[in-house]
Amino acid sequence: MYSYFHKIQYYETDKMGIVHHSNYFRWMEEARLEWMQSVGFGYCALENAGIVSPVIRISCSYHHAFTFGETANIHLFLEGYSGVKITIGYRFFDASGKDLRAEGQSQHCFMGAKGLPLILRHALPALDTALSSLLNTDTSRPPQM
Amino acid sequence: MYSYFHKIQYYETDKMGIVHHSNYFRWMEEARLEWMQSVGFGYCALENAGIVSPVIRISCSYHHAFTFGETANIHLFLEGYSGVKITIGYRFFDASGKDLRAEGQSQHCFMGAKGLPLILRHALPALDTALSSLLNTDTSRPPQM
Amino acid sequence: MYSYFHKIQYYETDKMGIVHHSNYFRWMEEARLEWMQSVGFGYCALENAGIVSPVIRISCSYHHAFTFGETANIHLFLEGYSGVKITIGYRFFDASGKDLRAEGQSQHCFMGAKGLPLILRHALPALDTALSSLLNTDTSRPPQM
Amino acid sequence: MYSYFHKIQYYETDKMGIVHHSNYFRWMEEARLEWMQSVGFGYCALENAGIVSPVIRISCSYHHAFTFGETANIHLFLEGYSGVKITIGYRFFDASGKDLRAEGQSQHCFMGAKGLPLILRHALPALDTALSSLLNTDTSRPPQM
Repeated sequence: MYSYFHKIQYYETDKMGIVHHSNYFRWMEEARLEWMQSVGFGYCALENAGIVSPVIRISCSYHHAFTFGETANIHLFLEGYSGVKITIGYRFFDASGKDLRAEGQSQHCFMGAKGLPLILRHALPALDTALSSLLNTDTSRPPQM
Repeated sequence: MYSYFHKIQYYETDKMGIVHHSNYFRWMEEARLEWMQSVGFGYCALENAGIVSPVIRISCSYHHAFTFGETANIHLFLEGYSGVKITIGYRFFDASGKDLRAEGQSQHCFMGAKGLPLILRHALPALDTALSSLLNTDTSRPPQM
Repeated sequence: MYSYFHKIQYYETDKMGIVHHSNYFRWMEEARLEWMQSVGFGYCALENAGIVSPVIRISCSYHHAFTFGETANIHLFLEGYSGVKITIGYRFFDASGKDLRAEGQSQHCFMGAKGLPLILRHALPALDTALSSLLNTDTSRPPQM
Repeated sequence: MYSYFHKIQYYETDKMGIVHHSNYFRWMEEARLEWMQSVGFGYCALENAGIVSPVIRISCSYHHAFTFGETANIHLFLEGYSGVKITIGYRFFDASGKDLRAEGQSQHCFMGAKGLPLILRHALPALDTALSSLLNTDTSRPPQM
């Protein structure tokens, strides 16, 4: 499990007085890119190697809104890795880590310079190894949604 | 089925050269609020009546990216209405309406001024009637995802 | 003078209940790129020709806020063109075109593929001619701020 | 002088490969609200007291773009305070604090619940005192633009 904090900004609120729901997807990206950096594969390095990792599918369930003045504590879990696709789960807590506000999930593939899907084992074996090992050793992840 | 057009803006792209995925959720909102207006229940009127309709869950699957210079044609379908909850489906096409780029779905409840869920049949019977009738008569919607 | 309409979106508001001020700069871009298209030089074509036109300086003065449910009518004026730099003025009105809500100004240069400034007369003579002629003939523009 | 760091996000870039210029205004807001918190007047507390501080005018000059992977170091200066209006200057550096990338300025007034301008000395004397004293003692600010 990887923990990421996002301080909520005024410009992220809407006239309902709470954070606009589209921002949660941006925070997932923030958490995901920090996590990849922590695993040793920063996104800049990936892009420089001609590899991008677009979103195939993404979702979020909202239980309780965040608002300005709060900090979101996002727990990120590697939920699945198939060699060509990666599934990541997200749990959005308040700063205390106790109040579950939202849950998200994203799926990504890996693509090369020409927009063609990559088999990571061939294209970037070290990342393939890191993800496989992480999937097997991270027992902290909650059951899949 | 309700059809909505969104002209893609430069500021909606990211350094991958395509529209950032978080924007699709904003376009769903654009389409949804226009559709509610067309059904006779503009969101301003709802808010003035003390009713808000927050997102409970939202998702999007991306098949093929949009980029700057294109116009998205979004088809919106009322997929479900339970009296307290509404489910809306979205299909994102290119301007010709032939190339399916993405598919989305959102669920919403209705809440009153104190943040409590509303039963629409009591709170706003006319909208309840409109939604029920729409659900039964719109046979153009695709099978649920 | 070029007139552009922007329908205000819910996601553009903040918890003050009005449009967040950063969005005005996005609407200036919308208006500017539409205007360039109308002059015969769409931004896609420029980019394909290896020319970009970054913002050097931009400003906005806010008189009276916009909010959700309104449509902004933006008047765009070519205020200056020096051969290497272009200055554009913007006046934000309500939909009626009578209530002046904000005024903006942006300055842009033209740059080639290697990030070096371009002299438009050499790089794209047709655009140079169009801008020069527009500057001399558009007498509708207000005095510079 | 107050120093604020913003880690640049992928979703803040555009297809030019650099940060979209509208985001600099969001970072100014981040820096400004953090600075107000550090002075003892968090924006939540202000809003709870029925006071808002809208932007009257804002500008930014761009020297050199930021891009994904960088962290912006924003220096904030109280450039002016008249009792009813406040002027804030911003200098955007790279993380090292040596490479000046952009310069900004914002002006704000203070308004009460009914949208009427406030004289801060009457409405919130402690903030008036804090700002006056800060204006006189902060000799680190650069000459006004």
